[in-house]
Amino acid sequence: MHVAGLILARGGSKGIRLKNLALLKGTPLLLWSLKTMSQSRGLTSIWVSSDHDDILELAHQNGAQIHRRSAESSSDGASSLDAINEFLDSHSAATNVLPPGPTALEVDVVALIQCTSPFVRVAHLNEALAKMTSGCYDSVFSVTRSHSLRWTQLEPNETEVDVANTEEIRAVNFDPHCRPKRQDWNGDLVENGAFYLSSVQLLRRGLIQGGKISFVEMSAAHSIDIDTAYDLWLAGQQASYFGFEPDGDSGDVNHLQRC
Amino acid sequence: MHVAGLILARGGSKGIRLKNLALLKGTPLLLWSLKTMSQSRGLTSIWVSSDHDDILELAHQNGAQIHRRSAESSSDGASSLDAINEFLDSHSAATNVLPPGPTALEVDVVALIQCTSPFVRVAHLNEALAKMTSGCYDSVFSVTRSHSLRWTQLEPNETEVDVANTEEIRAVNFDPHCRPKRQDWNGDLVENGAFYLSSVQLLRRGLIQGGKISFVEMSAAHSIDIDTAYDLWLAGQQASYFGFEPDGDSGDVNHLQRC
Repeated sequence: MHVAGLILARGGSKGIRLKNLALLKGTPLLLWSLKTMSQSRGLTSIWVSSDHDDILELAHQNGAQIHRRSAESSSDGASSLDAINEFLDSHSAATNVLPPGPTALEVDVVALIQCTSPFVRVAHLNEALAKMTSGCYDSVFSVTRSHSLRWTQLEPNETEVDVANTEEIRAVNFDPHCRPKRQDWNGDLVENGAFYLSSVQLLRRGLIQGGKISFVEMSAAHSIDIDTAYDLWLAGQQASYFGFEPDGDSGDVNHLQRC
Repeated sequence: MHVAGLILARGGSKGIRLKNLALLKGTPLLLWSLKTMSQSRGLTSIWVSSDHDDILELAHQNGAQIHRRSAESSSDGASSLDAINEFLDSHSAATNVLPPGPTALEVDVVALIQCTSPFVRVAHLNEALAKMTSGCYDSVFSVTRSHSLRWTQLEPNETEVDVANTEEIRAVNFDPHCRPKRQDWNGDLVENGAFYLSSVQLLRRGLIQGGKISFVEMSAAHSIDIDTAYDLWLAGQQASYFGFEPDGDSGDVNHLQRC
């Protein structure tokens, strides 16, 4: 089974300029992810897909195979799925690859790793890879457990409040007459966007998640997704507090579940 | 209409010892909340209910009226509702109060403020008080907007996966075949635990939320709820980054919605 690890790293980004190369503890985000991927068991090949020379250069220098992404699939409107399928279509023609990349048919699973989630540890990735290669699941992705009590606004026809812009709400996932205690329920699993493993069969049907789906749980502290300058700053603070290093290995993935 | 602002501040706490007096930017958490409350429009009286002398002393020194909470309602098993109703039952007999506290019947609304949520700003509280005094709602509380994509584990009878401990999941609040973009939906409103305003009528029926219910939205940066030593550390970092001060007033409550 060929499992291709893939980072989609556009040069353009709305928040931080060249976000994928932003420094966290002195190391570019891209390398945090590449180091984790290179240490994990079960990735047959490691790829970085980008439209930006500096990103492709750094990826190549650090042992990743590179895929030059088209301007079309690098636009703000393009989805990750578009970019993955472009990768699957064309990576066999990628240049600068030694040995030549696998043909599209040879890849069985794509492990999409977001380098804006730098605290994915080798243990998280290994757990996901073990689930995918077990044959029991068609897609596996990372989640954070949440005990949120959730509410939703009533539609105008649901409310009797006599105001033009009513802001009446009702509970969605619990009974306010009998509020659950944290220890009495398992909470929800919330996508944290750190990684998605999907069979190529599924991706070719236009889905990242589908068939039999499973998950890998990450603590909230491990789950940060860097979008804004504040997120990047916070990630640096967290790395110092918890001792996260860009070696893919540090950080006890279990004892942090409460954080 | 008498709106009694109330902080429930036990001496005992599981995570941080004497959490309610923990220092954030050099100021005890209790005082962050009291300063916000004292500046808000619409609180008729301000109360701190506690079983601990140091907490009651600090509250009294800072202009709050005090209610000595019983050991029973201060136990780990007691709910906030138990403590609020004990306050409503007995606060007219509280000592050290000048002028004497209102009798139970005089209070119309209780505004429960959690001092473990130090970044409640005066503007948040004023918005909640305006909603309650409008007469349109029976309870109003603080929320954070969330765009979480949520999943839940399948029950054994829902899955065909042939393993003893299946970890198959299904989406709860969206269609994975048509994943929503963040800009295309309003997200969920999630209780952040910072404050709850409830009519006494409702509280006497054993409910904190009920009748016509509304909300006040706070940004994620304002919404931190301090439970662990890590949370306290993180709150200190956030206060520095965003310039939050214990004056109840700083921090633009609107432009931070993205954080």
